[in-house]
Amino acid sequence: MIDKNRRSLVLAAGGALAAGTMGSAGAWAQAAGGGAERKLGYAVVGLGSYGLGMIIPQFKNCKNSRLVGLVSGDPAKAKRVAAEYGVPEKNIYNYQNYDSIRDNPDIDIVYVCLPVSMHAEYTIRAAKAGKHVMCEKPMAVSSAECEAMIAACRQAGKKLMIGYRCHFEPTNLEAIRRARAGEIGKLRYFRSEHGFNFGNPDAWRLKKAMSGGGSLMDMGIYALNASRYMTGEEPVAVYAVESTDKKDPRFREVEDRIAFELEFPSGVIGSCMSMYSAAQNHILLMGDKGRIELEPATAYHGNKLWVGNGHGDDKNEVTPPPGPGATQWAGQLDHLSQCVLQNREPIVGGEEGLRDIRIIEAIYRSAREKRRIALGPDARMV
Amino acid sequence: MIDKNRRSLVLAAGGALAAGTMGSAGAWAQAAGGGAERKLGYAVVGLGSYGLGMIIPQFKNCKNSRLVGLVSGDPAKAKRVAAEYGVPEKNIYNYQNYDSIRDNPDIDIVYVCLPVSMHAEYTIRAAKAGKHVMCEKPMAVSSAECEAMIAACRQAGKKLMIGYRCHFEPTNLEAIRRARAGEIGKLRYFRSEHGFNFGNPDAWRLKKAMSGGGSLMDMGIYALNASRYMTGEEPVAVYAVESTDKKDPRFREVEDRIAFELEFPSGVIGSCMSMYSAAQNHILLMGDKGRIELEPATAYHGNKLWVGNGHGDDKNEVTPPPGPGATQWAGQLDHLSQCVLQNREPIVGGEEGLRDIRIIEAIYRSAREKRRIALGPDARMV
Repeated sequence: MIDKNRRSLVLAAGGALAAGTMGSAGAWAQAAGGGAERKLGYAVVGLGSYGLGMIIPQFKNCKNSRLVGLVSGDPAKAKRVAAEYGVPEKNIYNYQNYDSIRDNPDIDIVYVCLPVSMHAEYTIRAAKAGKHVMCEKPMAVSSAECEAMIAACRQAGKKLMIGYRCHFEPTNLEAIRRARAGEIGKLRYFRSEHGFNFGNPDAWRLKKAMSGGGSLMDMGIYALNASRYMTGEEPVAVYAVESTDKKDPRFREVEDRIAFELEFPSGVIGSCMSMYSAAQNHILLMGDKGRIELEPATAYHGNKLWVGNGHGDDKNEVTPPPGPGATQWAGQLDHLSQCVLQNREPIVGGEEGLRDIRIIEAIYRSAREKRRIALGPDARMV
Repeated sequence: MIDKNRRSLVLAAGGALAAGTMGSAGAWAQAAGGGAERKLGYAVVGLGSYGLGMIIPQFKNCKNSRLVGLVSGDPAKAKRVAAEYGVPEKNIYNYQNYDSIRDNPDIDIVYVCLPVSMHAEYTIRAAKAGKHVMCEKPMAVSSAECEAMIAACRQAGKKLMIGYRCHFEPTNLEAIRRARAGEIGKLRYFRSEHGFNFGNPDAWRLKKAMSGGGSLMDMGIYALNASRYMTGEEPVAVYAVESTDKKDPRFREVEDRIAFELEFPSGVIGSCMSMYSAAQNHILLMGDKGRIELEPATAYHGNKLWVGNGHGDDKNEVTPPPGPGATQWAGQLDHLSQCVLQNREPIVGGEEGLRDIRIIEAIYRSAREKRRIALGPDARMV
């Protein structure tokens, strides 16, 4: 079997990597004797708008990843999608026979694109079936679930990565690079607003049992995660204010707006806003010598980056160099494939997802109790 | 004496206004039998950068105000300025003989352009000398001082106005008008950052005894005041985080950065940032149907206004109609003159300044005690 042979080669390459003799996918591919890039097989779990609309079309842009399987509760839809993307019918699964993916050597990695409340179960079942896991963010509805997911993957000896696509998005990467290079001086202030005006009041994201929360879980997490990757620091305290019109039919179960202030060890203040009733997608880094601004900051397409002196009258738009993949999703998908191939840990692994969820839990608690919550080094409330 | 006659006319007009028969300066001028605009006489107290650089040159743009007196501790400087602006030498005072302005009928109004710690004394002495007062913002170093200033002016039967120039600035006025007209739907979120990178470490603004505080007193007050005039609401609670590098020679006595979250009764969240180590001058209003953005928002010149759908890709710059004065300062100066002439209360009187100082005191306390502070209807901490 081709796949078995490939896996042997991967193991051999992994050993070589561990010994420190090689350092890149290209080097590995050479060592593997081919020169051609190897592609690991992904099964996408969940054919909702994100999985079907955003992830599945991206495999054509990947170097190390290909779509080989589908998991769906809708057999007709799965069949249609399989036909469109050349997935063999034998690689279509449903939620009942999902565990039998263990017997399918085509599938190396499972991508969990389900409502948040299902992330833990489908990640853990994948790990138990011997598959690596890419899980969409937010990682899960609670930190306890995140911990269980990490434990399951560790126990199975499988990689776990969270779908933080912005870590592979050129505009964000260029902003990080410039901030780290000291281009705006000493960082003083981080701000990010993320939100949109939610339309459909019946969407699963507005059902707390499925989403785990409102705008914070869905949009605020972009601001929170960006506050961490842009500053390169971890927050030591948080304070949050929630504002939700409970008479609005969209917000019977989950929050609309939540503002949160983050304190970072260097003294940087992070001021974030998450909204389901207004549209904004913005990141600002203020240094004592200037500023970096992104708007839209974390959109699927068309993100823009400006660098200036902070007075607003000299903003220069910057075109970032290409990112690690042809698109942010290709970069993300291939990163996990390369981590598997080279036995490296993903840059946004389970611990990254857990950390955000712990901070989100602190934000919710702060808003509920109307008080500042201190965070320990592992982002647990102290 | 011309001035005595004028004052009689003013009183007559004031009586007519109180009876509700007239409502505008133009109407008053007609009633006063002239048709020509009357000009009240201002004495500027303090020839520092703001008084000398910004206020004094503005009288040439005024319809109802003229510069007639100077109060300074530097006789040579005062003489030079007086000569340049046509102020008679007899109308030059110093801080010792300041109270004798009571005997000078040329002076109707005193404009206090001194370090904040001197605002209360020079306002109260002006009121006792029978003069109306324009006092620069922040109104004073404490709410107790503000209350004493209000009481002194009330007791003397004199007007008190605080130098909130942005209430006369076309860009801000147009933003308020559009927000109130519902152009961006229901207001969801207000944000403002104000700051600059402070240069001179020896400036009086960095001496707590003279300034009353750091960036919040000087710059954050713009964000705070804007949160109130833009929303048309009064905050019911505040939470603040301060971040100051005490090893920075500029910040031995006063704060550098302070972020504060304001809760408004309608559910609007106000997120503000004040800084002495980074340059930013920005106001954003997010509604559920769009946004209004100002940048720079409260600068002396060149403020800009955009209206858009909130996605950042359709921002349309808007040219506001002219404001009430030829410049924001002319509008401000003439407003107090007109209030005196028509016996009206200024739109930004002592109570407005007091309210900001009460909230500022709550912000400082919140930052110090790391807790949310609730505010009563009069902005007192509860």
